[in-house]
Amino acid sequence: MKTVNELIKTLNGLKSNLHEKDFLLTWEQSRDELQAVLNIAEALKTMRTENIATNIFNSGLGISVFRDNSTRTRFSYASALNMLGLAQQDLDEGKSQIAHGETVRETANMISFCADAIGIRDDMYLGAGNAYMREVGAALDEGFQQGVLPQRPALVNLQCDIDHPTQSMADLAWLQEHFGSLENLRGKKIAMTWAYSPSYGKPLSVPQGIIGLMTRFGMDVTLAHPEGYDLIPDVVEVAANNAAASGGSFRQVTSMAEAFKDADIVYPKSWAPYKVMEQRTELLRANNHDGLKTLEQQCLAQNAKHKDWHCTEEMMKLTKKGEALYMHCLPADISGVSCKEGEVSEGVFEKYRIATYKEASWKPYIIAAMIVARKFSKPSLILQQLLKEAQQRVK
Amino acid sequence: MKTVNELIKTLNGLKSNLHEKDFLLTWEQSRDELQAVLNIAEALKTMRTENIATNIFNSGLGISVFRDNSTRTRFSYASALNMLGLAQQDLDEGKSQIAHGETVRETANMISFCADAIGIRDDMYLGAGNAYMREVGAALDEGFQQGVLPQRPALVNLQCDIDHPTQSMADLAWLQEHFGSLENLRGKKIAMTWAYSPSYGKPLSVPQGIIGLMTRFGMDVTLAHPEGYDLIPDVVEVAANNAAASGGSFRQVTSMAEAFKDADIVYPKSWAPYKVMEQRTELLRANNHDGLKTLEQQCLAQNAKHKDWHCTEEMMKLTKKGEALYMHCLPADISGVSCKEGEVSEGVFEKYRIATYKEASWKPYIIAAMIVARKFSKPSLILQQLLKEAQQRVK
Amino acid sequence: MKTVNELIKTLNGLKSNLHEKDFLLTWEQSRDELQAVLNIAEALKTMRTENIATNIFNSGLGISVFRDNSTRTRFSYASALNMLGLAQQDLDEGKSQIAHGETVRETANMISFCADAIGIRDDMYLGAGNAYMREVGAALDEGFQQGVLPQRPALVNLQCDIDHPTQSMADLAWLQEHFGSLENLRGKKIAMTWAYSPSYGKPLSVPQGIIGLMTRFGMDVTLAHPEGYDLIPDVVEVAANNAAASGGSFRQVTSMAEAFKDADIVYPKSWAPYKVMEQRTELLRANNHDGLKTLEQQCLAQNAKHKDWHCTEEMMKLTKKGEALYMHCLPADISGVSCKEGEVSEGVFEKYRIATYKEASWKPYIIAAMIVARKFSKPSLILQQLLKEAQQRVK
Repeated sequence: MKTVNELIKTLNGLKSNLHEKDFLLTWEQSRDELQAVLNIAEALKTMRTENIATNIFNSGLGISVFRDNSTRTRFSYASALNMLGLAQQDLDEGKSQIAHGETVRETANMISFCADAIGIRDDMYLGAGNAYMREVGAALDEGFQQGVLPQRPALVNLQCDIDHPTQSMADLAWLQEHFGSLENLRGKKIAMTWAYSPSYGKPLSVPQGIIGLMTRFGMDVTLAHPEGYDLIPDVVEVAANNAAASGGSFRQVTSMAEAFKDADIVYPKSWAPYKVMEQRTELLRANNHDGLKTLEQQCLAQNAKHKDWHCTEEMMKLTKKGEALYMHCLPADISGVSCKEGEVSEGVFEKYRIATYKEASWKPYIIAAMIVARKFSKPSLILQQLLKEAQQRVK
Repeated sequence: MKTVNELIKTLNGLKSNLHEKDFLLTWEQSRDELQAVLNIAEALKTMRTENIATNIFNSGLGISVFRDNSTRTRFSYASALNMLGLAQQDLDEGKSQIAHGETVRETANMISFCADAIGIRDDMYLGAGNAYMREVGAALDEGFQQGVLPQRPALVNLQCDIDHPTQSMADLAWLQEHFGSLENLRGKKIAMTWAYSPSYGKPLSVPQGIIGLMTRFGMDVTLAHPEGYDLIPDVVEVAANNAAASGGSFRQVTSMAEAFKDADIVYPKSWAPYKVMEQRTELLRANNHDGLKTLEQQCLAQNAKHKDWHCTEEMMKLTKKGEALYMHCLPADISGVSCKEGEVSEGVFEKYRIATYKEASWKPYIIAAMIVARKFSKPSLILQQLLKEAQQRVK
Repeated sequence: MKTVNELIKTLNGLKSNLHEKDFLLTWEQSRDELQAVLNIAEALKTMRTENIATNIFNSGLGISVFRDNSTRTRFSYASALNMLGLAQQDLDEGKSQIAHGETVRETANMISFCADAIGIRDDMYLGAGNAYMREVGAALDEGFQQGVLPQRPALVNLQCDIDHPTQSMADLAWLQEHFGSLENLRGKKIAMTWAYSPSYGKPLSVPQGIIGLMTRFGMDVTLAHPEGYDLIPDVVEVAANNAAASGGSFRQVTSMAEAFKDADIVYPKSWAPYKVMEQRTELLRANNHDGLKTLEQQCLAQNAKHKDWHCTEEMMKLTKKGEALYMHCLPADISGVSCKEGEVSEGVFEKYRIATYKEASWKPYIIAAMIVARKFSKPSLILQQLLKEAQQRVK
């Protein structure tokens, strides 16, 4: 493990303009900017382990806007705020269709007089979630420029219709920890594959986030799903371009076994085809309950044809030495545990259970790092200050 | 802009007994007491702008009791608590009719063992909201005197059936900022006028708060509404008396145009006649859903007769040089934006949009100032201490 | 009142291993461990009175899991967290039947990355609440040992199906305050008696907690209830054994008058027979609404036969010099106030109203003390440090 001082030194050598822009899609950030977030996250996690206080702010609110039920992301965000010294305040808008125009401009300002961070999760409406975040960002820019707000809050994408950057960056941090360095990921094969689940409508942001990010680091990324379970074409193109630029590879297959073959890492997870998500968005907008029910039944029937997309011990034997690292954003649909038939067998999950917890444990630090990178032009100075004070978190 | 030191000096010259009493109606406070709150608010806002930490408390809870849905007031209160170093804790009573007697006495104490502030919003029941706050206040007095509570929490009226002091005081702070000083408000004409809205049952506390407060500072206050849309007569009388005492004027008219004529400031906003609010209170108490529905339809039909009470560019031309300051407590019903026909045209609102945001930005500081004034006998010493430490809020 | 220094000295002489184990049932703790919690609570309360800051933590979350509506316990827990410097974060699971297995293991870890305390209230399902807490505790142990969590959060039982340790310990702290010392409680007669209430299904944890704890301190504990209103037999056995070991006594009677006779303390409170709670648990698990309704009616009818179990002025005359201390965990069912006929007459309650508030005021300090005792191997050093710094809570 690197020391905080080593991390600060690396951080000093990176060219990051995150202070100037929100972190809404990983592929909008430079490689240095991604690495800066990883660095800060690792520094904060190390300090926590060494019982050094990390509360950079001595006051300030962190607003949360959750348009979906959430436990994991909610607690990760709350943990990130708490470790930085911010207090959480929830904006409860209900699950109504997202607001536009004047409402967004006004609300964004009204909640931000003392806000240093705003975290938004909005993944239900295809074509809307990420757009909404940008609308909020523009309103915050205007409010700050016009002297309405004394500070520009950091905007954090806690999952949108396109990307799930706090998840994919936490996954990357975990891979870096597990394999020893970012460099070690070069040439590693990761299989991002669809898996059967008895539920439908699971968002696309995790698989899209994974193929959009892991292709940046020279990995061999294989995307696998049954025919028809396509991701948003634009994002698939982004992944292909990333791979070409980073010296890795990106390919698509229609067999879980083929994807698993010789993989170093497997990420089996259910999602709904993006065309279904488009239909679902229209039905949600139209408040068409019957239509939604019909769509759900069709999709569940469709899913049921692919129960063999199941991460079993047999399937794992196909991977590199039968010992690929299993990953999941949690909660997984575990066959015989959380459902009758699901994404992963009980045995495989149990073997990697603690590993998935460790994967998840990076999320609070990644979120905190994104806030720090957005709020401070020189995050390394902030970290140095924390280290110098070395205030014990618990006396 | 005055420096914090200048504000502290002025504050030292004011005779305020706010430390001894709750701030439940502006007209129960002396002119010096009102000015003390304005002074503290301005000092806190200036410190925030200069990045000086204002967390006076190093622990303590701020309780919130909202009997109505609320976003703006909730966030203003949360912001005020946060800037002072208090943590918010919500008492969720549902929207049930307010409690009385032993329940209030007991609950007030049970939630206050570590509370330094309690903010209550209760504006649905005419004749009940303000009374409830006083009942809570008496229970807190008893609890503190009897040694149950180690401290007497500051009670903040976040809107009641009679007054909305955090709104009207924030409005006054904004007017002071906009026109340069309290003295400059003397002789300025403010038109507090009813405006058409496609909703009904909007509380009376804003117009009542405005006429009850602005008449204290020598302003020429004109209250305008269609016949029948009366405010509570007692409050109208208070306004008349205030005007007489402060050397300003107070008059009532039944035409928006007449009110707008040569006005320096206009505040067009919908409300329900107090007699309707009385009926509504009875129906709410009786849980009479059909009656409430019938009343709503009658009122909406009645409102629809007055769609010409609309703040348009034409109407604005009647004001002083056509450039009166437009005010609103937000959210406004903007014609063609948030509703088909509403209180204000899109053009007028857009011209003053940022101004209304700045108006709103005073509320967290006003609430914080009310808490500080109630908790400390010498607020100027507290401010001086903050200034002396000059701890940067964000390093 | 003892000084904080005297309390620290006593604390130093106690052998407590609370740092190694959760506080889930008072009878699992040694006498020294119980006294350590009382000592820490008293020290914190004294410091609060003397306006000395007690925020031991400079960051950290306190998670709350409430499976029942709660105001008092919620605010006591929030107050405890706040006085220690922790921020509250609520896990909202709804009132659904409690989770088991993987869900508990995973959730316990996912919410705890930055958690220093987890408080759980789960008293609806007989045989389940305490078991659930132990399952959470085991998951936290595993997470900490496996390096998933940087710290092991303190687990606080905020009421389960068996015991209500924060209530009984707060009651004990109040008795210690009222009678001057723990030693003074020796030989005092406390009557824990059933009382009539127009509601049903009140948990057993308060009477069980009282007889399980007060028998540890040489008190003469009398448990009284109408025939059939039995507590869990195991707990009654614990009480009998405790009394034998501590040199006190424990007996059961079927008459309120007999229990009140010469009592120093009376604790009249309604509860449901444990056999009813067992049936209720089965019906709740089966989601059997009709069955629950029928059970409720049967129980209310049964209760109504015992309206004479009423704590009146007449009844109080039977107690020692007619001046026994009346106790209640609140809210009490006060005849003619909160219900037509209830547990206690208005006159008796009013006489002891402030006393019951003071009883309740101990709960935040007891909860805080339990957290401190679990988190720190040498709580006395922590208290000494607070005292040395003597930072004023409010400047």
